[in-house]
Formats: sequence, C-alpha cells, structure tokens
Amino acid sequence: MSITSFSLSATDGKARTGVIRAPRGEIRTPAFMPVGTAATVKAMLPEQVRATGADILLGNTYHLMLRPGAERIAKLGGLHRFMNWDLPILTDSGGFQVMSLASLRKLTEEGVTFASHVDGSRHMLSPERSMEIQKLLGSDIVMAFDECPALPADRARIEHSMHLSMRWAQRSRDAFGDRPGHMLFGIQQGGLEQDLRGQSAEALRAIGFDGYAIGGLAVGEGQEAMFACLDHAPDQLPTDKPRYLMGVGKPDDIVGAVKRGIDMMDCVLPTRSGRTGQAFTRHGVVNIKNARHADDPRPLDASCTCPACTGYSRAYLHHVFRAHEMISGMLLTAHNLHYFQQIMEGMRVAIAAGQFEAWETAFHAGRAEGDIPPL
Amino acid sequence: MSITSFSLSATDGKARTGVIRAPRGEIRTPAFMPVGTAATVKAMLPEQVRATGADILLGNTYHLMLRPGAERIAKLGGLHRFMNWDLPILTDSGGFQVMSLASLRKLTEEGVTFASHVDGSRHMLSPERSMEIQKLLGSDIVMAFDECPALPADRARIEHSMHLSMRWAQRSRDAFGDRPGHMLFGIQQGGLEQDLRGQSAEALRAIGFDGYAIGGLAVGEGQEAMFACLDHAPDQLPTDKPRYLMGVGKPDDIVGAVKRGIDMMDCVLPTRSGRTGQAFTRHGVVNIKNARHADDPRPLDASCTCPACTGYSRAYLHHVFRAHEMISGMLLTAHNLHYFQQIMEGMRVAIAAGQFEAWETAFHAGRAEGDIPPL
Repeated sequence: MSITSFSLSATDGKARTGVIRAPRGEIRTPAFMPVGTAATVKAMLPEQVRATGADILLGNTYHLMLRPGAERIAKLGGLHRFMNWDLPILTDSGGFQVMSLASLRKLTEEGVTFASHVDGSRHMLSPERSMEIQKLLGSDIVMAFDECPALPADRARIEHSMHLSMRWAQRSRDAFGDRPGHMLFGIQQGGLEQDLRGQSAEALRAIGFDGYAIGGLAVGEGQEAMFACLDHAPDQLPTDKPRYLMGVGKPDDIVGAVKRGIDMMDCVLPTRSGRTGQAFTRHGVVNIKNARHADDPRPLDASCTCPACTGYSRAYLHHVFRAHEMISGMLLTAHNLHYFQQIMEGMRVAIAAGQFEAWETAFHAGRAEGDIPPL
Repeated sequence: MSITSFSLSATDGKARTGVIRAPRGEIRTPAFMPVGTAATVKAMLPEQVRATGADILLGNTYHLMLRPGAERIAKLGGLHRFMNWDLPILTDSGGFQVMSLASLRKLTEEGVTFASHVDGSRHMLSPERSMEIQKLLGSDIVMAFDECPALPADRARIEHSMHLSMRWAQRSRDAFGDRPGHMLFGIQQGGLEQDLRGQSAEALRAIGFDGYAIGGLAVGEGQEAMFACLDHAPDQLPTDKPRYLMGVGKPDDIVGAVKRGIDMMDCVLPTRSGRTGQAFTRHGVVNIKNARHADDPRPLDASCTCPACTGYSRAYLHHVFRAHEMISGMLLTAHNLHYFQQIMEGMRVAIAAGQFEAWETAFHAGRAEGDIPPL
C-alpha cells in the first residue's frame, strides 16, 4: 500500500470532498493552497498561515531556483525546514513563471533557457531539471514541467504546445522515478479546445500520475470561458485522483470550480490583495483605503473570527493602510486567507451533507447583499 | 491611597528595580518601552509585542494628532482599543517630534505652530493642547509639553529653553488636573549643563509630578557626554518616583543608564534596525544582509528563545531580507525586541540579587567576544 493516498468521502453533483494523505499531513479537499513564492507567504508567519486553516502551501520553483537556489535549500535541509513549515508543500514546475517573468527566453524540445528577472543570470529549465529542483526542495507534491501558452492563441499554437507538454510530462514521469511519500501531478493543457484537452487527458492517463492538474486557465480568458472549459475538463481526468486547478482564483471562481469537480486550487489573490488594501468578505470586496471607513468602529465582518476582525475596527485598518504600516498587510492577509479557508471549509461540510447547492445559493446571496452601509 | 504607585524593591549601587502599578497593569522597572509611533509597533502584532516581555508601549502624540487625529481616536474608544493593546501606554508630548519632523515652525511663549509632515496642514501644540490630546488618546502616562533644543547649542539657548520648558511644565500640570489612574511626568531639561539640570529638577519638584523624565539627551552628544550627564542628572530627581530617560538607546546605552539610576527608557532602535537587517545579540550586532550568512544553518543566537532564533537559520533570514520579504522585518523586529527585554529582565534579576556589577561585566564580555565565526 502506498504511503500517499487520495480518498473521496462524499460527492454532491460534480462537487467532491475527501482527503489526500501524505507523510507530512492530511490535505482536506477541496483545498485552497496559499502561495509562498519565495519561501514565505508574504506578510505571514507560518504558524499564522496554519491558523487560517491551510493544510498545504505552494512554493515556486522558478523563484526559489533563482534565489536562494535549490542546491542551497537542499544543503540547509530542504524547503520545509528552511521556511519553518512542516506540513505538505506543493511546488509548481517553473513552467508558468518562466514564461511570465523571465526574459531572453529560448524554447526548444529540450527545455527553456532564460535570463533571471532578479539579476539577469542565465538559467535552464527542462523536465529533468525541474524534477531535480523540486526534489532538492523536498516538495511533497511535484508538478510535471509544462509549457503554458498565453491566451488568446490560435489552435495550432495551442495544439503544438499541448503535445510538447505531453512529451515533457513523460520525461517528467521518467525523471521523477519512484519516490515513496512524494506525489507527481501531470498537467492537462489544450487551452479552451475541448478536444485538445481530451487528447491531453488521455496522454496523461496513459503515463499515469498521482494527481492531475488543469493548466492554461485563469490566464485572461474570463470566468465564463473558464467555467465553460471546466464543464468538461475535470470529467476528462480520472475520478480517483485529485484534480488541481492552477492559479484560481477569486472566491466565486473557486466555488464555481469546486462545483465542477475541482479538488485543489492556489492563487496569490488573498495575499496580494491583503497588501493593497483589499479585503474579501461574505459580502464582497471591501476597499479599506476608502474614506468611508475612517471613522467606522465596526470590524470588516462582525461574524469573522480572524485576528483582523476580532481585534480591530475598519477605522484602524484604514489608518494603518494610509500610514503605510506593515500591520496593514499583515492583518488583511490574515483575514483574506482566513476567509478563503472558510469558503473551503463551508464547501467541504456542505458537500458531505449533500447541501452544496443550498450553500452555493447562500454564498451568492451574501455577495449580492454587498458591504454593510456606511454609518 | 492612589490607584497608581511606584515602589522600589531593591537597589544595587545607583541601579534600581521595582514596579509601577497602574490600573491597566504593572510595569516592571527598569523597563524598556517599544515605540508604537502611529498606533502600531512596526512589523508586529500587539500580542507578539507582549510576548517579547513588554509591559508598556510608547505612542507618539505628534504622529497621532496628525493621522488619524486624536479626536477620531477618542471617538473610537481611545488608543488602547484602537490599536488592540490593553496594557499601559505612555505618550510623549509631541514637543520633540514637532522640532525634529514638522516644518514652518513658529515658537512662542504660548506654544508651537507648525505644518504637518504628512500633508502640510497647519497645527498648534501647547501645554494645554498636548494635555488635551494625550487625554483624548487615553494615555496612562502623560508627558509634560517641553521644548527640546538640538545639541550642540550655546548655554544661553539651553538656559532660555529650559526655563520655557519649566513654565510649560507648570501649565501642563495645571491643564492635566486630577485624573485618577493616569500619571503625569515632568521632563528635566538643561542640555549638558549640570547646574541648569539642577535648576530644572528643582522647578519640576516644586510643581510635583508622578514621575520625572530626563529629556534633551540622545540627540547627538555621544555616549560619553550622555553618561557624564547621567552621572548627576538622575540624582537631582526624587528617589521615590520613576526616572525615565527619553529616546535611549543602544544596548550598552541602556545598561549604562540603568547603572546610573534610570528606571524607564524607549527607543526606535530595535524596531527600526529590525527592518534594515540589523539584529542585536549577546555578541553584538549582526548584519543579516552580509553574504557570510547565505549558507549558514545556525540561528542568530543559539541561546535565544525568540521566534526568529527558534524557527529560522541565518541563511533564511539572509534570504528573506535580500528578497525584500515582509517576514524579514517581522522576525528581526521580534528578535530585537525580545533581546532588549531580555536585557531588562537580566538587569532586574541582577539588581534584586545585588549582582548588577557581575551582570554588567558578563554583558560587556559577551559583546567583546563578537559574533560567532563564519562556518
């Protein structure tokens, strides 16, 4: 028997709830993974991230290979020890960031050479090197190395790219080898073309992975197009393995994705927004920099149990944002991550109870209400 | 009997240890007060500040009156509630910051008019307005409004300024009135002139305060001159009231001040240095940005029990500083505040045991050792 596993405990429509078991801990699904790009979830201490309810973090291969370097992290005992997080970590493959952040890229069948956005130094990523880096980091869930074309792109470009990614998926599988306790996920590509996604899914199933990601979405196509794709893409993947939608998303994106059979997601939105004064609540987005909050003694959300809502008024959060104080990003990030995890917990409970539709209706009704009126 | 009190439990040479009792809590002396300028100790949550061992914070009247405004904070329930800190708070009078930060200053017998460094708006501070603002904030320890001339200054300027400050001290006392549970401290001035400091102390004693601060030091005169002044200045103040040295200092400044009879201090150094990559340890200052730390798996100080030292390597702290991650300032600030409080606790215990000299010798010996050698 494998020391990692995925088991579903309930489904409700296409929505699923279950648990991924790994040596470092259990990941309750549907799961939202906070992003810890450079070995830190920005503005948070690891114990504070855990307190929001996160079971797993995401780390970025591209950033970490450039600074401080994967070999260095390995010598220091691996990423978990380095960043003081002993629960599971998923690392991406670097494929997406190298396309969005690096310069002087050269793409060949072998892989990608590029210049670091930090210092201009030259680097190379390939399926083999990505597997090596993710092993050096000690990642619990390793992502196959893929190419992710920006949308819109013509069908020929999407198709060519998808086939390249599938060849790279096989090379990733071969290079990953047999690593008990660690999981390797393949990544479905194919843009918004349903038949190409079907071919991609077939190719990945033939190779065999511990989980299957849906890549190439949330890259500017809009929610309607993404949901249209997700009406089919998850169904093309195995039902007995976790399905991970990469880089998603806003609260309503997350709910719509879970509804369509997604088990895992990640996004910088709750952390990035926390640093720019945006708070996500049951009633939608609150822009704390707005002058309407300057004298408001009420919390962001009176029913929220996060540190920001239990300890501070909107007036305080407004003040510290305006004064450029670090506690602004610290509190709003904690709130946003807490809220995202509350959404996940709400969906897990609702799916287990066969009440997903009622939960979803209440979720949208709360957002439709909008923020509390000014005093 | 007053609901506030100060009692000494032991003296060792001129060094003293005791406790200030106030309705919001006990302040163990000698005490170091972290600075929470704009209603936040930068990079820290209040519960994290408390965990370092702080019994009291300092808030800045000048900053808070400009943003978010004292009347606003009062309407929101006072500074304690606003910033989520329910232990004692000392507020300065604004006199020092208005001279160091504001522009277009006009000083008269009445007070100071000036332009805000935030938005250029015009404001006024006087003894009466400073007392009013500190009352609006709900400060536990209120500072008299004084004028603090920059050093070096000629004797005539120092003398004139001291007499003005003493007239303002009387007006502060009159305006403060009778506020059970709140304490008013007078501020001795007189630069480095011992006789002027003596006159200032006499004037303050004649007015009568709950505590006495030594102002006008740590403004560029150097440690030797400051200590020479402190060889006499504390002795000029009442023995049965707390003596507060404003704006000090580096660890060896603090130890030298306590040795000379000081009970309370405040300084931005541990917090500001934490954000610029400087860590204070038993073995002196560590500049975490130095490349020698890039591969060092050891903590800043293996004997330190702070969150930074128990959870992270120097290599990690180096990485997150270089990557401009907020956790760098968060961890180093926590470390520095923890170390400063450890110094205070060490001195309190040593004074109680009649071992201050031995403690001081060990303190200086540790610093003389210097940082651990590179690996």
